Amino acid sequence: MNPIPVIEAARDGTGPNPDELEAFLRGYLEGRVEEYQMSAFLMAIVLRGMGREQLSRMVEVMLHSGRVLDLSHLPGPRVDKHSTGGVGDKVSLALAPLAAGLGLFVPMMSGRGLGHTGGTLDKLEAIPGFRTQLDLAEFEAILTSEGFAMIGQTEEIAPLDRRLYDLRSVTATVPSIPLIAASIMSKKLAEGLGGLVLDVKAGSGAFLPAEEETLALARTMVAIGDDHGVSTVALVTAMDRPLGRSVGNALEVEEALACLRGEGPADLREIVLSLATEMQLVGGTMQERDRARERAVEELDGGGPLERFRRVVERQGGDPKSLDDPGRLPATPVRLAVEADREGTVLEVEPAPLGRAVVELGGGRTRLGQEIDPAVGFSGLAQPGDVLASGDRLGVVHARSGDAAILAAEVLRSAVRVGEEEAGEVRSRPLVSHRITAADLETSVPG
Amino acid sequence: MNPIPVIEAARDGTGPNPDELEAFLRGYLEGRVEEYQMSAFLMAIVLRGMGREQLSRMVEVMLHSGRVLDLSHLPGPRVDKHSTGGVGDKVSLALAPLAAGLGLFVPMMSGRGLGHTGGTLDKLEAIPGFRTQLDLAEFEAILTSEGFAMIGQTEEIAPLDRRLYDLRSVTATVPSIPLIAASIMSKKLAEGLGGLVLDVKAGSGAFLPAEEETLALARTMVAIGDDHGVSTVALVTAMDRPLGRSVGNALEVEEALACLRGEGPADLREIVLSLATEMQLVGGTMQERDRARERAVEELDGGGPLERFRRVVERQGGDPKSLDDPGRLPATPVRLAVEADREGTVLEVEPAPLGRAVVELGGGRTRLGQEIDPAVGFSGLAQPGDVLASGDRLGVVHARSGDAAILAAEVLRSAVRVGEEEAGEVRSRPLVSHRITAADLETSVPG
Repeated sequence: MNPIPVIEAARDGTGPNPDELEAFLRGYLEGRVEEYQMSAFLMAIVLRGMGREQLSRMVEVMLHSGRVLDLSHLPGPRVDKHSTGGVGDKVSLALAPLAAGLGLFVPMMSGRGLGHTGGTLDKLEAIPGFRTQLDLAEFEAILTSEGFAMIGQTEEIAPLDRRLYDLRSVTATVPSIPLIAASIMSKKLAEGLGGLVLDVKAGSGAFLPAEEETLALARTMVAIGDDHGVSTVALVTAMDRPLGRSVGNALEVEEALACLRGEGPADLREIVLSLATEMQLVGGTMQERDRARERAVEELDGGGPLERFRRVVERQGGDPKSLDDPGRLPATPVRLAVEADREGTVLEVEPAPLGRAVVELGGGRTRLGQEIDPAVGFSGLAQPGDVLASGDRLGVVHARSGDAAILAAEVLRSAVRVGEEEAGEVRSRPLVSHRITAADLETSVPG
Repeated sequence: MNPIPVIEAARDGTGPNPDELEAFLRGYLEGRVEEYQMSAFLMAIVLRGMGREQLSRMVEVMLHSGRVLDLSHLPGPRVDKHSTGGVGDKVSLALAPLAAGLGLFVPMMSGRGLGHTGGTLDKLEAIPGFRTQLDLAEFEAILTSEGFAMIGQTEEIAPLDRRLYDLRSVTATVPSIPLIAASIMSKKLAEGLGGLVLDVKAGSGAFLPAEEETLALARTMVAIGDDHGVSTVALVTAMDRPLGRSVGNALEVEEALACLRGEGPADLREIVLSLATEMQLVGGTMQERDRARERAVEELDGGGPLERFRRVVERQGGDPKSLDDPGRLPATPVRLAVEADREGTVLEVEPAPLGRAVVELGGGRTRLGQEIDPAVGFSGLAQPGDVLASGDRLGVVHARSGDAAILAAEVLRSAVRVGEEEAGEVRSRPLVSHRITAADLETSVPG
């Protein structure tokens, strides 16, 4: 195969012939297309975009580059959820056992924190003993009996994605909606799903803060899922403030547990229920939205999902007692309550500075493979619309040292904006602003 | 140095900091920037262009990546001419000895045929015995005593250009005005020139057929020359038909010799005189255009340049007798006269099909290093404006076999369009349509 016409077509925005594109990608896997040819191709995609047909073919090659799970023996629909990442996003910990309780099978493969956003694996590992590196046989066994299991990406899944991701990170070819969508979807589709719900974050704390980019990413991923016969829906959800009132790995586990007990912040519960509703619809176990939502509420409030979570934690090596006794979760020696210095209404809580502060406190990574401190973070965070009297708390910093706590407290103070407005006048994003299905798409995917 | 911010700036069209760009290019030369990073950078330049300051810095690094001739000991201005390449362009063979006769030193390093366009080296090698691969010491000795010498690019000149060119050819990053301009100018500026005249071809037979691209390339090269303190001017000349009436290596040598004898086609003589005029102006030996042109006419018609050409041919190993006796130049066994099948005015002679036909006849290469047949081609070609009676010739095909001649005759027939118009109504490009100097430029270079 001659790689040059494929690169030329990408460069000229005319779109390579899908069969030639497939040969190009296979040639790369087999060493017949050079790294320098692939990087030129990737830069052309960054700058010229990619058509839907080409993108779906690329995802096809990526997902079949490694092992594809065959979960067809499971006695129910396989449905997963993917979030594009945010601050305080502990949704998966409550959602996976809830969806399993609703008759779905959730083969959840998650990632670690990236930049200012947290990662499900890091949160799970805040539970003492929890193992996220199961082999696929153990993963499937837990999934089969409990309806969900939660692990990290394995080397066997979509190795082409990993190679492309590594090359993109050293060639300034990361920011591309089709390439980001292909990376996410190739891994998710390798899970052998029947349905997929995407939680695409929008707002200043999202990976792509511009709303048109958020929507383009959501549409692109839905298109890819649809092209692969996976019923896919995307909810665009608010990330102009943290989700819930805690940020930091162990603190977020506590908040997810509160949700599983029917308690905790209303926004977290609402997102969990919205996504559980969509998962039943894409999984085909329910046809009516209202009824699906009622079932999700009943199931969550019945306490089954908490028991299911406890069983999976135990099977994955975690300490089940820590779920009832927060004293068994990692904790910091220093806790610093940060008080509001004026009364008024909380107008804004910027998520990205708080996410970066958690990294600074040791709760995230600045380089690959770094050990993290699961205990640090923020709890009891103010949310937009909260009405504060002077002296009320903006939140509590959890830190290893007083100095670190004081710095993080400063970040918290400047991340929160308080004003005179009435609570009803606060202008935040709606919690769920868009719902995007395959039927909403045009044929061409935005670049 | 971190290559990623340089690639990012190229990708975003913001223009890398010139010092960081220089470090990036030096890092590539020294193996600290990878091929895959350079190819991503090159693709970004193809799609986003490059600012003037960045481009001039890039040329600076390229030209200093190898040997830079120091010809400051020569007792006169060093001036060269570069053509972007066309069909029938034998200008250098007559121009170099003419310019030398006008007191200029012309250190001409030329290239070979590329695609449908011919190359000066291939034409020179049609002269039996002529050596184009002199070492630089011999080149400088001939240049010093005769005022000009003509060789091929050596490995010592601008090796970074060669590496980038090789990488571009396998990564679909060739078509970029700044990269083309940088490649040409880095090699020319390494000749240690004081002045440079560019013959930028425009029209269907040019490398860049679109007029706006031709003009952008001309402006970009003039800007680079100006930024390096080399007085540079570009003439945009017609390549909507072949230059002169012969195409093919030995046939073009004959036509260049006719020009040196004060004979031959008017268009060839006019281009040679126009470029010789500009060379005197950029070299600073003449200040007034009209007077410079008069001197060029006197010198050419005085016969000195023909004698000078003869001496250089002899010193470079060529058979000087072949210059007076065309029977000593390579010739084909088959000559096929092609007659017009209707009377009328020649409206158009398409150059690119004729150039490709010469390649097909064996007079050019379809792969690197291929041996070529110097004798084949076309002579006596009709030109736009010629008035033909029925049976008048469109040209003569020179070929190795009758079959090849018949195919080439077909190409010639369809390349020539004859109509009813009066000769004065024929719409061809003006022979010289634009003259571009540094004073005409804006600060930003088109991408």
